[in-house]
Amino acid sequence: MALPTRSLLRRAIHQASSLPPTIKEQLGIPAEDGKIVKTHGFVKSIRKSKNVGFLDLTDGTTSQELKVILRTQNQPKFQVGQSVSITGEWSRSAGKGQDKELRYDPENPRHSYQIIGSVPDDYPLQKKVTSMSFLRSLPSLKHRTATIASFYRLRSFLEGQMLQFFNTRGFTKVSPPIITSSDCEGAGETFKIAKSEDFFGKAAYLTVSTQLHIEALAMALNRVWTLTPCFRAEESNTTRHLSEFWMLEAEVCHANSLEQILSLTEDMIRFVTQKLVDSKDEYLRGVYFDPAVVEGRWLSLLGPRNRWHRMTYIEAIEKINAEHQARLKFGDSLSLEHERLLARDGPVFVTDYPQSVKPFYMSKSANFDETHPTVACFDLLLPEFGELVGGSLREHEYETLTQTMTRQGMSLDEMEWYTDLRRNGTVPHGGFGMGWERFITYLSGHDNVRDVIPFPRAPGLCKA
Amino acid sequence: MALPTRSLLRRAIHQASSLPPTIKEQLGIPAEDGKIVKTHGFVKSIRKSKNVGFLDLTDGTTSQELKVILRTQNQPKFQVGQSVSITGEWSRSAGKGQDKELRYDPENPRHSYQIIGSVPDDYPLQKKVTSMSFLRSLPSLKHRTATIASFYRLRSFLEGQMLQFFNTRGFTKVSPPIITSSDCEGAGETFKIAKSEDFFGKAAYLTVSTQLHIEALAMALNRVWTLTPCFRAEESNTTRHLSEFWMLEAEVCHANSLEQILSLTEDMIRFVTQKLVDSKDEYLRGVYFDPAVVEGRWLSLLGPRNRWHRMTYIEAIEKINAEHQARLKFGDSLSLEHERLLARDGPVFVTDYPQSVKPFYMSKSANFDETHPTVACFDLLLPEFGELVGGSLREHEYETLTQTMTRQGMSLDEMEWYTDLRRNGTVPHGGFGMGWERFITYLSGHDNVRDVIPFPRAPGLCKA
Repeated sequence: MALPTRSLLRRAIHQASSLPPTIKEQLGIPAEDGKIVKTHGFVKSIRKSKNVGFLDLTDGTTSQELKVILRTQNQPKFQVGQSVSITGEWSRSAGKGQDKELRYDPENPRHSYQIIGSVPDDYPLQKKVTSMSFLRSLPSLKHRTATIASFYRLRSFLEGQMLQFFNTRGFTKVSPPIITSSDCEGAGETFKIAKSEDFFGKAAYLTVSTQLHIEALAMALNRVWTLTPCFRAEESNTTRHLSEFWMLEAEVCHANSLEQILSLTEDMIRFVTQKLVDSKDEYLRGVYFDPAVVEGRWLSLLGPRNRWHRMTYIEAIEKINAEHQARLKFGDSLSLEHERLLARDGPVFVTDYPQSVKPFYMSKSANFDETHPTVACFDLLLPEFGELVGGSLREHEYETLTQTMTRQGMSLDEMEWYTDLRRNGTVPHGGFGMGWERFITYLSGHDNVRDVIPFPRAPGLCKA
Repeated sequence: MALPTRSLLRRAIHQASSLPPTIKEQLGIPAEDGKIVKTHGFVKSIRKSKNVGFLDLTDGTTSQELKVILRTQNQPKFQVGQSVSITGEWSRSAGKGQDKELRYDPENPRHSYQIIGSVPDDYPLQKKVTSMSFLRSLPSLKHRTATIASFYRLRSFLEGQMLQFFNTRGFTKVSPPIITSSDCEGAGETFKIAKSEDFFGKAAYLTVSTQLHIEALAMALNRVWTLTPCFRAEESNTTRHLSEFWMLEAEVCHANSLEQILSLTEDMIRFVTQKLVDSKDEYLRGVYFDPAVVEGRWLSLLGPRNRWHRMTYIEAIEKINAEHQARLKFGDSLSLEHERLLARDGPVFVTDYPQSVKPFYMSKSANFDETHPTVACFDLLLPEFGELVGGSLREHEYETLTQTMTRQGMSLDEMEWYTDLRRNGTVPHGGFGMGWERFITYLSGHDNVRDVIPFPRAPGLCKA
């Protein structure tokens, strides 16, 4: 008996070891009439006429569906939600937005199909549009819907673009800790780990922000960024808050002016948004809201051609008071409504907030005024949305920092690891933090951060 | 008065908004004799002779140092650890491994220097090689040493390469939850969140593995991966364990044979290791161990040209018994010593372990034998190291899965979200998990996972 040739052997190994192609891969190659292909996916919808049936298959790798034409009077009994495999042949398609379809004919001996996973009769994800609140009740199946899956693909895409942006700018991606013994950043209520005193020898918490830790890393690697889970134990039941969320934080050395941090923030958001606009065919398809509205949000970040508007907090309250009959005084917080007013015409950086409402680590404003003491910080506000990013220059002088900490009643002992950075070759530095789910929510055209993270955690909510 | 030209204006804005160049950027452009440059960094070492001083500057962006020559009898009083800025001029260098150096001459009016951050006399990171155990006692400063910083740059590089690998294979990166109500994966002891019953309405824990959750996401997006923190509350005080670590997990649909998961694992590791070999100038410089040994580890992953060895658990215990006078019986666990013996000649996949020692979700081996029941799983073992990756095919049939769960006394109610995946269009699938710090440790030539994560957490250890 002749031995199989080398190329036959290689093909056999390849078949045993490789995964079947995804629908994205199959739709990505040019149509070749009559070519036999085997495809795998979920049945998303079914339409029938007397002699022909139409099936949409999806596998979640793309927003596009693979169209199957069933050329038979005795059509197989497909059901929405089944996972199936269908072997048929490509046919160039006249349909809009698709260049080919799969034809299945039971009388063709080279065609076949298989129901891999059946569904019960009450399978919840039927073709009819299902409401977000209904989907939220399905913690393991909701991910298969076009809308929810499109959030995840967008999220994954944007993370890749962020990586590219920070690579080109010479940043190192770092992994700050989730469990921390610092409870004093003041960013919010913390979750405590049960029996942490027994295990770690001290109380330990889930981090509310990685900033203090990545400051230490920035002062070793010059420019760092991270995308990590953060946790807030607040009783905030809103469409803008999660108890567990991801935060993108960046910290850079040798920053002497707040403008350097604003520019970095703006460059970053413009970079990834431009990449999104360049890929709009994929990411505008199947979105929940009107695609024109979604693209409008993207374009609002890219225009005007110049830079986003900058205004100080003092200018901001003067504007609100003048135009909206408000009576804000220096030191008052801006409400969500105020933030949206300020960003009515486009993204805006509001800078230099009162020292009294900001954390201990921010450095004084460049034009510090004792009568209205402010710090070198900013919030980035977006139209119809509110705050997306917050950042500041950090106080890098040991004496100034520790004086503020003492005045605020903080323990210098516990924070020695942090203040040590200022005693040993300190460097002017600054950075920012951006709620990752807020960013995804804004760019997806959606209005609720709970739907862009697969398993949302909030007060009273911890499914699966 | 003439208005400034457009290009002058643009340059003024650029200067106010951009960060000064990093040392990596400055070393990356060709030397231009006599060009004036301003550089920023930490003083890493100082050598002096009568008329000339030598200074090494580092800013953590690269393993290379910027060499400064101080052309003066009255040399400025630099100290190791200071953060400084020096303005001087480039000079082509005759030194090995560097093509230029910065010359500073105090009599040249265009040259200048500034001590940005001073150091106390007891600054701990002196030029003399400091031991790892000493560095571990410096939670905020250790990151500035060449070795520790090289671990972080390697870590960041490898994450980028992973992203590229998974992108080319059509994977979506996903964000499974950290806080989970599932306590039953059996992978290890869990940390519980204090008062979680009050906050979430149920007990909540920190995840030990995201596998169960990413199974749900794979069965929506086809191929998913994640790199997320995981937590184990075990009293393991070893060089291979952390209480908080990052885990790379991947899950794919339409996997019918274990070989598909092995190939994916091997392809992934070969891909990123090849990228590392291609960048070896940067990543072999400044490593803690002998660079030849480190490169040896890399090359052991890339060779032999064929594929890594595969053997079943039964073959493995036979081999150990025959060659090493052991008396292992079917069902016994392999010790770390056994694992290292098996991988003596190169990476090896050990497959098909006894069902009795593996979790409920693994499906039966392809050639299942009732007398020696095994499951379709594997461990990847590395020379001198032991286990790096574990994976399996998952049981995708509802009846089989729930029978196993019932037999093991698990609550079907609590796990309904998971078993639901098998009732609603189930798909054969599988995946793997890799300890990220173990991978970094292996590739960096190091031997302790605690040094490749910036703020390690372990029993009794939670600094900063």
